[in-house]
Amino acid sequence: MSNAAGYAAQSATSPIRYFDLQRREPGPDDVEIDILFCGVCHSDLHYVRGEWGPVPYPAAPGHEIVGRVTRVGKDVTKLKVGDMAGVGCIVDSCLSCSACKEDLENYCETGMIGTYGGVEKQTGLPTQGGYTSKIVVRDHHVLKVPEGLDPAAAAPLLCAGITTYSPLRHWKVGPGHKVGVVGLGGLGHMAVKLAAAMGAEVTLFTTSPDKVADGKALGATNVVISKDPEQMQAVGASLDFIINTVAAPHSLDPFLAALKRDGVMTLVGVPSEPHPSPSVFGLIMKRRSLAGSMIGGIAETQEMLDFCAEKGIGAEIEVIPIQEINTAFDRMLNGKVKYRFVIDMQSLKDEAAKAA
Amino acid sequence: MSNAAGYAAQSATSPIRYFDLQRREPGPDDVEIDILFCGVCHSDLHYVRGEWGPVPYPAAPGHEIVGRVTRVGKDVTKLKVGDMAGVGCIVDSCLSCSACKEDLENYCETGMIGTYGGVEKQTGLPTQGGYTSKIVVRDHHVLKVPEGLDPAAAAPLLCAGITTYSPLRHWKVGPGHKVGVVGLGGLGHMAVKLAAAMGAEVTLFTTSPDKVADGKALGATNVVISKDPEQMQAVGASLDFIINTVAAPHSLDPFLAALKRDGVMTLVGVPSEPHPSPSVFGLIMKRRSLAGSMIGGIAETQEMLDFCAEKGIGAEIEVIPIQEINTAFDRMLNGKVKYRFVIDMQSLKDEAAKAA
Repeated sequence: MSNAAGYAAQSATSPIRYFDLQRREPGPDDVEIDILFCGVCHSDLHYVRGEWGPVPYPAAPGHEIVGRVTRVGKDVTKLKVGDMAGVGCIVDSCLSCSACKEDLENYCETGMIGTYGGVEKQTGLPTQGGYTSKIVVRDHHVLKVPEGLDPAAAAPLLCAGITTYSPLRHWKVGPGHKVGVVGLGGLGHMAVKLAAAMGAEVTLFTTSPDKVADGKALGATNVVISKDPEQMQAVGASLDFIINTVAAPHSLDPFLAALKRDGVMTLVGVPSEPHPSPSVFGLIMKRRSLAGSMIGGIAETQEMLDFCAEKGIGAEIEVIPIQEINTAFDRMLNGKVKYRFVIDMQSLKDEAAKAA
Repeated sequence: MSNAAGYAAQSATSPIRYFDLQRREPGPDDVEIDILFCGVCHSDLHYVRGEWGPVPYPAAPGHEIVGRVTRVGKDVTKLKVGDMAGVGCIVDSCLSCSACKEDLENYCETGMIGTYGGVEKQTGLPTQGGYTSKIVVRDHHVLKVPEGLDPAAAAPLLCAGITTYSPLRHWKVGPGHKVGVVGLGGLGHMAVKLAAAMGAEVTLFTTSPDKVADGKALGATNVVISKDPEQMQAVGASLDFIINTVAAPHSLDPFLAALKRDGVMTLVGVPSEPHPSPSVFGLIMKRRSLAGSMIGGIAETQEMLDFCAEKGIGAEIEVIPIQEINTAFDRMLNGKVKYRFVIDMQSLKDEAAKAA
């Protein structure tokens, strides 16, 4: 084991603060990464507050990790020391089930190991996320971050990016398609950028009139204020596919009604309370589907990073020192971020150096 | 116009009883059919009781019609006098929208004209269904009933058959697939027969232990009592596709949980009250879909009839005289029919002859 520093919650109600942790020594298949940037995902907050179940405190969240490779195990060929590397929501999976064999580690039949809140197979300890100075991850689950990408803006691609990219690809979005994106937050702003880059005509649905200009600047052709029934009506049944990024409970029916025959709306957020039950009539009348999608596989995540490098896509970010994380959580809860916080981990290392 | 006889509801609460009606003279594209048999669908009851909206009483239901062609318009080439013909839920559609051009008249963008409860374009009168002695229908919407099919057992194919056949084909069910069917009624028993005939391994979900033997006799490999959590648990996430025929509100989650990754459950019944809201987590965790499907197109209905003739498939029926229709409705409401009532229209013609 080797020493590391991090920020962790000590309980469901305490602020996140500095803590010391240990990382395992890299095994033959492992990659050790010096973390440079880590995105701040809404899931981080759900997790540390215990909203998704019991938490092994102290608990460090963070699953949008970019950093430099510092050590590799003897069997690692995918990355070498000095490479820019990324780690998303998955640090391990069985690699032998039917899902893993189809490069869908996110749907691993035995259960993927989450970057935080899981149990490390190698040590039996809780996995600790990216609000830390370094991390050791099995090579298969480490991404290569193309040098053309800004490492800070690339960090949110590892969760917000792949979570929206994967369903867009799975449902074959491309030129000539009309795609709806519900919600302009961390996930929604990536969905707009990615769908537009794939050649689709994008309609953004937002409740905030002050996001119209941003939506268009990010690539949406149309921005619809979803609380305005007239604007919703005007969309008609015109969309091929909708990605719905809003986790707050809301009526799905006005969005389902915006789908053409055979259209699909895919949910990527899990609400704390159920959405109102969707209208069966709305599904039946045009053979529509309501689906769900969770993150994406490792190969697809690499494909997404390469696509973003080729298209010059990064997240819209506000870089913060880790000491501001609790304020950032509050602002995120209130929707006061455009559109993703990313922690500059130099701030953690400076604090650790002072503490030493 | 020409005289015809029928059975109709006079109000939402009255029994169905004898009435006189008129049918239009066949136009150049029209086919006149002497009705021999008409199936009794749950929709018939919803309709006459006004549960789907205002009803133009007197209202004759019935959209599972088989009979002999008696007259054809001068431009009709599809059928000739003496042919065995069928009419399902659709008597007209625009034939020019994108849906109609894709042979999906059931999803006609301008609205298909229902066999009952619609408005006849040619006369402006309410359409009257198959609880009548004859009907006149635009040729495109008339099916050819293969002579190999028993005409009484073929009648329910026009609604219960195509409503289950269409989603099974759309979602490409075939050999090697594991298909679930929820509910063993008029639609469910056709779904079991059709899915088995397509080569799938069928799991029937029913709440009735006394339907186990029937389910197996109809072609199900497995019959699961859906109220038994242990039996449901044992199914695991094993099915590729589920067709859910139950219109009564019920939790969809145990059935969604029975789907493999990328599995689809399609609803073909509309509940009077919403189902409990389906778990978003259940959709997301395995990229599952919840879909809907409504009847099927005309070409697909012909394909289904030909498929049934080839495979020797008809509905399981109990033939009744039309004078017993009100009792039949009561029995249908109580699930006391195996598995579809079909009216022998000779009983109506005999009554009409006496009345004359």
